[in-house]
Amino acid sequence: MARERILPGVSKVTIADVARAAEVSTATVSNVLNGTGRVSEPTRARVKAVAGALGYGPASGGGRTLGLAVTAHGESAWDFASVPYFAQAISAATIAAHRRGYALMAMPSGPAEHMWRTLPAAGVVLVDSPPSDPVVRLLRARGLPLVFDGRPGELRARETWVDTDHEAMTRRVLEHLAGQGAERIALIAGPTQEYYTRASVTAYRRWCSSTGVRPCVVPFAEDGSEGPRLDALLTGDGRPDAVFGLYDPCGRQVLEAAARCGLSVPDDLMVVCSSEDPAYGRTTPPVSTVSLAPEQAGAAAVDALVSLVENPRHTPPPVVIETRLEVRSSSKRRSRRHT
Amino acid sequence: MARERILPGVSKVTIADVARAAEVSTATVSNVLNGTGRVSEPTRARVKAVAGALGYGPASGGGRTLGLAVTAHGESAWDFASVPYFAQAISAATIAAHRRGYALMAMPSGPAEHMWRTLPAAGVVLVDSPPSDPVVRLLRARGLPLVFDGRPGELRARETWVDTDHEAMTRRVLEHLAGQGAERIALIAGPTQEYYTRASVTAYRRWCSSTGVRPCVVPFAEDGSEGPRLDALLTGDGRPDAVFGLYDPCGRQVLEAAARCGLSVPDDLMVVCSSEDPAYGRTTPPVSTVSLAPEQAGAAAVDALVSLVENPRHTPPPVVIETRLEVRSSSKRRSRRHT
Repeated sequence: MARERILPGVSKVTIADVARAAEVSTATVSNVLNGTGRVSEPTRARVKAVAGALGYGPASGGGRTLGLAVTAHGESAWDFASVPYFAQAISAATIAAHRRGYALMAMPSGPAEHMWRTLPAAGVVLVDSPPSDPVVRLLRARGLPLVFDGRPGELRARETWVDTDHEAMTRRVLEHLAGQGAERIALIAGPTQEYYTRASVTAYRRWCSSTGVRPCVVPFAEDGSEGPRLDALLTGDGRPDAVFGLYDPCGRQVLEAAARCGLSVPDDLMVVCSSEDPAYGRTTPPVSTVSLAPEQAGAAAVDALVSLVENPRHTPPPVVIETRLEVRSSSKRRSRRHT
Repeated sequence: MARERILPGVSKVTIADVARAAEVSTATVSNVLNGTGRVSEPTRARVKAVAGALGYGPASGGGRTLGLAVTAHGESAWDFASVPYFAQAISAATIAAHRRGYALMAMPSGPAEHMWRTLPAAGVVLVDSPPSDPVVRLLRARGLPLVFDGRPGELRARETWVDTDHEAMTRRVLEHLAGQGAERIALIAGPTQEYYTRASVTAYRRWCSSTGVRPCVVPFAEDGSEGPRLDALLTGDGRPDAVFGLYDPCGRQVLEAAARCGLSVPDDLMVVCSSEDPAYGRTTPPVSTVSLAPEQAGAAAVDALVSLVENPRHTPPPVVIETRLEVRSSSKRRSRRHT
């Protein structure tokens, strides 16, 4: 039972561990990993597989585990895995990792810095990484390959990104609403400044400027303050005839505010929401949604990360993910410009 | 920049690491963890939190990471995370882990034994663990707390289980079909013998025996061989008037076989399938499904595991998860015994 050695918790893998697990001598392990000596092909393959699985050797830190983290809101603990976008991205990333033979470790938000120093992973997918992300600094110091979901400020060796085309997504929603007769389109965005928000607001302001529409950005909230704020927006001077909400709860919030203000959707007010929640197909009226295709983003990020882990000399090119607009009753006008 | 020490891959955490991260002396760390000396309450709390996050100390092996593995089919690599049941269980487990401040590592199926020897986790959820599971042996040798999703043959200290009530689920489906007039109900189950299959087949045979119905168990396949086999079943002597399929694709397979054989669903043949796939609400006709409530099982398993990790002296009791039967057209007869 010599092989039943107890290894509690995190432990440093030694050449002796690899030798024991592969049932060869430490000299053979050394020969295989250094390309020296004479070792049969089956033994060579077994030693390499074992070293990889154990995370032993210069190129295999963390073995066959990949990390995934949403670092948008830094150290604060928020329940991102309950948000349909992140839930679907994590699920797709898990499937993609398993297909390549890797475990996927989904990190909670706001872990202590120390977690990142010792995270046993061969590489990490960082979703919505903010500028000057301290997690990026820590992982770069360890030399781990990184894939960003959402374009980072700077890209180094063994790093790449996947990204949704937020510019095209925002333009598409605005053009759809304008095509249905909207003349004053408000955007619910912020107050946080994560990558997705910044990219979408920039695209919104650009579109407003190019079409001569006065921009109106309303900050998002979920603490009860959004009710009075939306009511004031929908009944005030220069009130919008359409609202595009960047976050999952926005569609329901705007429907409720419209009902309180006696506005009919879509005739008085059109609504589009960025969401992956199929429940928007069953609201009254059903709400048009734009999907950021999280399942494609999650899978593409993991595929790129596995490439970076397994081929340190080749960095895969960035991937742009297409969005999908699902037009429902909330933004279909029967009796205006376009019927 | 002394704190920016590079820690590639898996590394062993020392008391010096804890001291550095908590910004105290190693003597203070030792005092806090041994309950000796005089240390202020804020410092004590900080040192404990840092030690926990780093996975340092006797009770914190693996730090704040939990493992989840589906070991039903041992060493074979299968794409379980694409199956709606497992996808939803993993997603719920991830959310529950994050809420408690833990990372969740979803393991691929069929990893090498070595992975389990060095897995940096404070505890593991094992889904559908087979009898004599080698993974259980390895994890027990490391003294890790375990939670089984699906009752294990044997339970040791710091182990518990959550389980769907397969007996009640199977009986409920059979009674529903009998209530709609079915007299010969076939079961699609096996040929593999994982826990879920064994428990459901046992309940089916018990129900058949108590009601005097002749049992008919048809093995599941997805390799093309199921087509001819189902056609033979549905057109042969003593053909069933209802089929209950234990696996996700069964409903579609039976609908297709019925169409090939010129049988009308539900009038000639009723169908119920165990599935978490909402697409069964949109087939022709929509197929009745029984849900095993994976989101409840995943969350309950992680909650129990966190309890075991944080309170080594208290083992939480087993949890039984209720199933949900969604009756759709495929098992509703208009003009038979019950209308």
